Parts: sequence; structure tokens; C-alpha cells
Amino acid sequence: MNIVVQKYGGSSVATPEKIKCIASTVIKRKEAGDSMVVVVSAMGKSTDQLIALAKSISEKPSKRELDALISTGEMVSSSLLSMAIQEMGHDAVSLNAYQIAIKTDGTYGKSIIQSIDDSVIKKHLEEGRIVVVAGFQGISESYDLTTLGRGGSDTTAVAIAARVGGVCEIYTDVEGIYSLDPRLYSEAKKLEEISYEEMVELSVLGAKVMHSRSVELAQKYNIPIYVGMSCSDTKGTYIREVKNMENKPITGIAVSDADVAVTLENIDFDINLLADIFESIANKKINIDIISQTAPLHGKVNLSFTIPAEELDECINTVSKFASKEDIIVDEDITKFSVVGIGMKTTSGVASKIFKIFKENSVQVKMITTSEIKITCAIKREDKSKAVEIIAREFNL
Amino acid sequence: MNIVVQKYGGSSVATPEKIKCIASTVIKRKEAGDSMVVVVSAMGKSTDQLIALAKSISEKPSKRELDALISTGEMVSSSLLSMAIQEMGHDAVSLNAYQIAIKTDGTYGKSIIQSIDDSVIKKHLEEGRIVVVAGFQGISESYDLTTLGRGGSDTTAVAIAARVGGVCEIYTDVEGIYSLDPRLYSEAKKLEEISYEEMVELSVLGAKVMHSRSVELAQKYNIPIYVGMSCSDTKGTYIREVKNMENKPITGIAVSDADVAVTLENIDFDINLLADIFESIANKKINIDIISQTAPLHGKVNLSFTIPAEELDECINTVSKFASKEDIIVDEDITKFSVVGIGMKTTSGVASKIFKIFKENSVQVKMITTSEIKITCAIKREDKSKAVEIIAREFNL
Repeated sequence: MNIVVQKYGGSSVATPEKIKCIASTVIKRKEAGDSMVVVVSAMGKSTDQLIALAKSISEKPSKRELDALISTGEMVSSSLLSMAIQEMGHDAVSLNAYQIAIKTDGTYGKSIIQSIDDSVIKKHLEEGRIVVVAGFQGISESYDLTTLGRGGSDTTAVAIAARVGGVCEIYTDVEGIYSLDPRLYSEAKKLEEISYEEMVELSVLGAKVMHSRSVELAQKYNIPIYVGMSCSDTKGTYIREVKNMENKPITGIAVSDADVAVTLENIDFDINLLADIFESIANKKINIDIISQTAPLHGKVNLSFTIPAEELDECINTVSKFASKEDIIVDEDITKFSVVGIGMKTTSGVASKIFKIFKENSVQVKMITTSEIKITCAIKREDKSKAVEIIAREFNL
Repeated sequence: MNIVVQKYGGSSVATPEKIKCIASTVIKRKEAGDSMVVVVSAMGKSTDQLIALAKSISEKPSKRELDALISTGEMVSSSLLSMAIQEMGHDAVSLNAYQIAIKTDGTYGKSIIQSIDDSVIKKHLEEGRIVVVAGFQGISESYDLTTLGRGGSDTTAVAIAARVGGVCEIYTDVEGIYSLDPRLYSEAKKLEEISYEEMVELSVLGAKVMHSRSVELAQKYNIPIYVGMSCSDTKGTYIREVKNMENKPITGIAVSDADVAVTLENIDFDINLLADIFESIANKKINIDIISQTAPLHGKVNLSFTIPAEELDECINTVSKFASKEDIIVDEDITKFSVVGIGMKTTSGVASKIFKIFKENSVQVKMITTSEIKITCAIKREDKSKAVEIIAREFNL
């Protein structure tokens, strides 16, 4: 059995017409001999609408109830796609997280999948049905619905592909993966392929095409992912082990305005304190990205780090036991600007080249962090477009 | 623990404002010392909207997928009500059919509840939480969502009340049970109490206030039901064992335009054939109401019965093996007019009085069926208002 796991995003199932288009695309593949599993996101903006409904009732709704609420969006789209396939004369069945036991670690809003029972999926496939799975959702130990985070349907698709031994195809409203967001730089090039590592970095850094955990999962199980546009024949991008590494040091740029920088001033220069601070933040499941610390002066240091803006309140609550109120400084005027490329492993001087270009163009760099394959800077928001353009042109992206 | 199971209908949770009103009502009862379980329907017209969405994709969507789709409506409203209660500072938890294992017989669209696991509900109540249950839904043996039929949330509420040993209160957008629909007869009187049997008959016959199976279930477990208006202090109606039977022979009138009459002409006068016909219709879970058969002539009879209009296609398919196409006659111009009253058990001559009034007012009676406590006639639709008024006035309803 040649199993293909396809995922269609919210914009691909936004209307009954689009759902019908997906149905006929899926049926074509089925008729060509593949066993089809289709993972769907919620229709169009319906998740946002459900969140808005929740906010009209509670400024800060409980995460458990919010997950229970927004999980319904994918149940709706999966049922509708099944109906559309059936209407075209093929057998289909929708399945939710309870029905295929997508067990998670139970963290509301950003769960990690721990296991999937593929027996029900395989039974339906063997009986010739097209299986439609509600993406984005899982269930906790205590049978609560928990969601996998924005874009989590990608992870549902990869996890199922890994479990049933299938290939994975992600369909969305863009034609593939670009070196950078074409809305930021109109000349951005579509990539034929990209390595797992690069894609993970770009996703974590704010490229919205793929859910980063889905790519990590694909890398772990060595599942190639094809990313393409739904209901289109244009060739997309493969995310896979890249063997013929290009000479280019940089594959892509990602920028994000979703973070804020928090600085704790005048804290004790003490490695235990540092560990305590980051442990208490990690316990709240807040993702820290850039970290920087000044050199100690009179036994005191300043510690800065960036976090997602929506976690700011919780983060400040958490760190307020380590610093007084006036020593916690928040800088909301930052854009995270990152360049990513496995070529950096073998090409030296990329960082110095970037900083030189920034200096020549008066882009002020507030914070820096680097890894083997990426360089991330926090810059002022007003410098964003300029930074994107000068770096993209310089590295021919 | 004094457990109160309340059910709020779709119109009572139609908007965030109404949901907040329900939340504060429920909290008041909780603060007065009751342990609260709240069963909710889907918001306003959301079930209809989901059905319309399905119909935009498939003229006749599969019942399994339709149930999976429309079950989401109650998940949405239960989460929102929990959020509203939490926002007011009380602990609440929403639970769906999977979480409290509302097991059904698996019939899509009109399932019967077979069991409920009340351990989760009781645990939350003991820990001081207000429990909000998604009504209308259950799960089949194979873990599919199955719905209980229109108004099925009433049955969810009664079944939970029976299981946990609580009282049951149904809140809706009318002030209680009326002798007949005030929209049909503006002088209709609200009843203080009504017996289970009468309420079952009125519900089956089309009074939309209560789901008939919920009343049967309440009768079986002797759970009194209070029916009142949500967010209002007006006194409603108790459905319970009525001891002091009134002298009135008739308690209520129900009329329904939802049925059609099917006649099979010139079929063999054969009891086996009759049994076969009704068995094959029953196998499709189509509810037959009035049945009448003409006296045999040359070994042939005409057999008429009424069924819900939406089951007509399926019914005709089913009976087409027993009669030729031209011998299957459909009459869509019928209104089912029923009078109900346990007083009829002890008062004779009610039927003859009704037929006399109909005759005097030229209301043509097409079909008749009677039970111990009810008389149902199929009349022409154009005679509906007249029939309601003359009978209501005569029996002082």
C-alpha cells in the first residue's frame, strides 16, 4: 500500500468551492493508485473567529476551554471534505483526535504528539476509503482536547506519515518555500529544495509556511515533505536531506515582529540565579530566543532575552521574583532578522559581511545570537525593509 | 450533594450576552448550595447554519458526517459557557460526549443513549466545579459522534439527572408548557403541571418545547422536570406524576405540518405483507404515526400512513418493492391535529364531540388514530387555524 498523507491549510478549505476542488484533487490521486490520508486545518479564518467569540466572553479565556473550542474548527472542515468526496462517488471517512487516539503531552495551546493509533486509519485505507483527519488537535491523558499550536496540522500530517509509513505533502496558498517572504521582497526566489535544518530555523524564526515542530519530526523519521500550492500544477519545494549542498552560504531570510525584548538590570552575577531565571521561564513553556548578558560590573550584570509578545505578561510575572519592577525593562520596538543557511557551516565570514552591510546602511543591531547555520539580530522595526533588501540583494536570494 | 441538572436551549445561549446571563444564573444557584450540571444546546441557529454548509457541499450528506459536523455546535457553546462562568470567578469545566462516555445505540441523527459514565461529572462536582455538558451528542460503539435528534439536549439533561440522582430543569425561550402553541391561539393558557404521558404525546405530536424521548426517560426514572424561561422569574410548568387529575378531558392540542400521508393502493389483503411493509419501514428508522386501512375488496386493500416529510424519499424507496409506482399515492396537504389529555381515560364522548364540532365547521377529517389519552386527525392544511380555534374554545384551553 503506497500511502500519501496530504495536508491542506485553512485557506485551501476556506469555502465549499475550495473544499470541492480539494476533493477532486484527492480523488485523482486515489484513482492513480495511492492510498490517501488527508489532514485538514479549519476553514479560512474560522479559528480566529472562534477566538474572537471567546474573547467577547473572557479577556483571557482558560487554555483548556479555548482548546476545546477551537478544536471544533478542524472537525467541521474534516466532515465537510468527507462529504465532498462522498458526493463525488468515493468512500471517505472523517476522523477526529479521539477516534485515532492522537495522544499528547497535555499542554494546552502547544501540545506535543506522543502517540497515534494508526489501526483505525489502516483499516479504513484497506477497505478503500479516503481518510480525512482533523488536524491541529490531540487528546490529553485526561481526555481533554489539546491543540498543537498555530500551524499544528502540519505536525499532525507528518506524525501520521511517520506512523503509517507514507510520504507527506503539504498544500497551502503559496507555491512553495521562498528564500524570504515575497511580500517583503518581491524578487524573492522559490527554492527547489531546502534541508530540514534550514527549514526548522526559518520556521522557528517566523517563516509562516511550515510548523517548525513538523519539520523536526520529519527530520527525525526522515520523511521528505513536499510543499506546494493546492489545486495548482506549479512545482513546489521539497524539504529533505540535502546532499548536493549549494555554494550559497545563505538559503533564506526570516523576519518577525512577534517578539519583544526583556532586560533584567543589575541582577547578581551568579550562574545559579541565571539557571533559576531560565528554568522558571521554561516551566511556563515560554520560548526564549536571543539571550545576551553584559560583562559583570561590581558583581552585577544586565540580562536581556527575547520572547513572543503574547507571553510578555506571564513572563514579567515569572521574573518579577528575580528583579524589582523598575529593573525590568521591556523593549517592544524590535524586529528579529535572521539569515539561515547550511552553507554557513563551511563558509566563514558571513557574520562579518552582514554586520559590515548593516553598518554601511545604518541598521542598528540591538542583540545578536548565532548557531551553526543561522545568525539572528534584533533590529529596530523601522529598519526592517531596508535590512531585508540589502541582505537579499547582497546574497542573491 | 444536592445535584441540579439544568438545560439551556439554543435561543438561551444565542449570543455572548445571553451566555453571560446564563452563567450568572447558574452561579447564583451554585452559591445557594446546589451542585450544578448545565447541559447546553448549540448557539442560536448554528446547527441550521452547519446543516446549510453541509448542503452546499452535498444535497444528501452522509448521516455519519452530518452528525460529526453538527456535534461541534454544542462543543462550542459548552466551552463558551465555561469561560463565562470562569470569568465571573467560579470554577467550571466543559465536557463532551467522549469525556463522559455518553454511549448510544449508534443510530446517526436519532440515537438512543445507552449509558453515561458519571464518575468524571461527580469528581468535578465534588471538587466544587460547575460542570457544563455538550448536549445533543453521544458516541457509538466505534467512537463515532452520533446525535440524539432535534431537541436531544433535553434527553442529555434528563439522562444525566437520572444517572447522578439530580433534579432536572429545562430552560427555554417560552415561559412553560401551554395547552397549545400561543402562536396558533393567542389565548392559550400556560399549565402549572402536566403528566409525563400527556407531555410525551404532545411532544411526539409536534409541540416543540420538549424532546419526547426526554420525557419518556424522565417518566421511567420518575425525574420531575421543570420547564421555564431562561433569565426570568416567571413560574413555569412541572412535568411530573399528576395526582390530582383535573376534570378537564383535554390538556393540550398539538398540530404539525411536518408529515405527509402515503397510501399504497390495491395491495393484497395479507397480514404477512402488512408486517413486512411496516418492518422494512421500521428498519429504516422511519417513524410512522397514523395508520389506516380500508376494508378488503376482492382480496385487495388500500393502506395509508403518515411519516415525517423529510423521510418521504427513503420511505418510497423502501415501499416500492411492495407496490408499483402508480399505486403509491402521496398526500402532502395534511396537518396532524391532536388533542391530548389523561382526562380522556375517564371521560367518554370526547371523540364524538370533536367530530361533531369539525362537522359543524366543515373541517374534513382525512385520517384518524386514537390512544387512551389522545385523538389525532389528519386534516387539510387550510383548516388548521379554524380547527385549533374551535376546539380550544370548546374545551377552554
